Amino acid sequence: MSQKPDWLVAHGTPWKAGEPRRVYDNPWIAVTEQTAVAPTGKPALYGLVAFKNRALAILPLHDDATVTLVGQHRFPFADYSWEIPEGGGPLDEPPLAGARRELLEETGLEAEQWTEILRMQLSNSVTDELAIGYLATGLTQSQAEPRGDGTEDIARVRAPFREVLDATMAGHIQDALTVAMLLRGYHMAREGLLPDALARGMLE
Amino acid sequence: MSQKPDWLVAHGTPWKAGEPRRVYDNPWIAVTEQTAVAPTGKPALYGLVAFKNRALAILPLHDDATVTLVGQHRFPFADYSWEIPEGGGPLDEPPLAGARRELLEETGLEAEQWTEILRMQLSNSVTDELAIGYLATGLTQSQAEPRGDGTEDIARVRAPFREVLDATMAGHIQDALTVAMLLRGYHMAREGLLPDALARGMLE
Repeated sequence: MSQKPDWLVAHGTPWKAGEPRRVYDNPWIAVTEQTAVAPTGKPALYGLVAFKNRALAILPLHDDATVTLVGQHRFPFADYSWEIPEGGGPLDEPPLAGARRELLEETGLEAEQWTEILRMQLSNSVTDELAIGYLATGLTQSQAEPRGDGTEDIARVRAPFREVLDATMAGHIQDALTVAMLLRGYHMAREGLLPDALARGMLE
Repeated sequence: MSQKPDWLVAHGTPWKAGEPRRVYDNPWIAVTEQTAVAPTGKPALYGLVAFKNRALAILPLHDDATVTLVGQHRFPFADYSWEIPEGGGPLDEPPLAGARRELLEETGLEAEQWTEILRMQLSNSVTDELAIGYLATGLTQSQAEPRGDGTEDIARVRAPFREVLDATMAGHIQDALTVAMLLRGYHMAREGLLPDALARGMLE
């Protein structure tokens, strides 16, 4: 990795963790509570939500500067959410393999080029959930019928990148990975990190 | 809100939720498990991590196009993390009041202008954590000494926006709110949503 400024170093004392006690477990998360000593030396009790999957997000960017989004009802917010394709990948699976699978399952799309463009710790005071975001280009529609996991009823739309970005900045789309990946796509288009014709289409 | 495309509507049937059973609770989160019926009609058991605070994030952008970051050890990843100032605000507190407090506590800064620039659902398949991001400008250093919550040992740095953005895109900073807010700042600078001189300083 490049461009690491001098100030980007660690200070002080790390957290010290005691023995974790499992308080809840399902196929997606394990919640533990453990005694800990804070960097200040203060004793603490830490409730940690450990994720059993990586969050994988795909920005499927077509040659005509449109993107494919998927829509679904999200339980925790009891609302409907339009998002880029996302899914969980087991921690021991190469993340790119999981991203290919999720894109195919949710949209029926296959991509020639895959580029990792973002890593995010989604909520790093409570969870260890790590997200990896890929740009997928050179897209073709596979013959396979998109399918969910049995609980997912997924709608799809293909819309201009710029329209999706503007709707997101207006607050109509709030999924964190979608927000960040669209802004990262905008940044790449503006910074000359995408083919010229594609970038022009995304910005106009 | 503006720019809502026609396709941005809900489809299908919402989740139906049963009676939640509390399985874990601490001052920050409450974990519940409940029976549910998925949008497909399939029965499911949903483990939900409910947050007792909103996540508040502040991009403190100085007139000279530098930003103030804070550094701390993060327990869930057992690593050191440089981030924009962030904190939790009780759900019944006006979020702007919480953002002012967090900025002052972590950096000693006060801002003349506050603008909400981002809302994100941080992990909307498992948690209901909502983040609100503010741009803080017209910054002055208060006489008050920055202080943490007793477990926080916080370092501070003031660095050029462009340097911080580049280091983040290189993967050296991965906190989700920091990644998204820096990209949103870049977007605002490029789109003419900030004063010209400030935007020029952020982009050069």
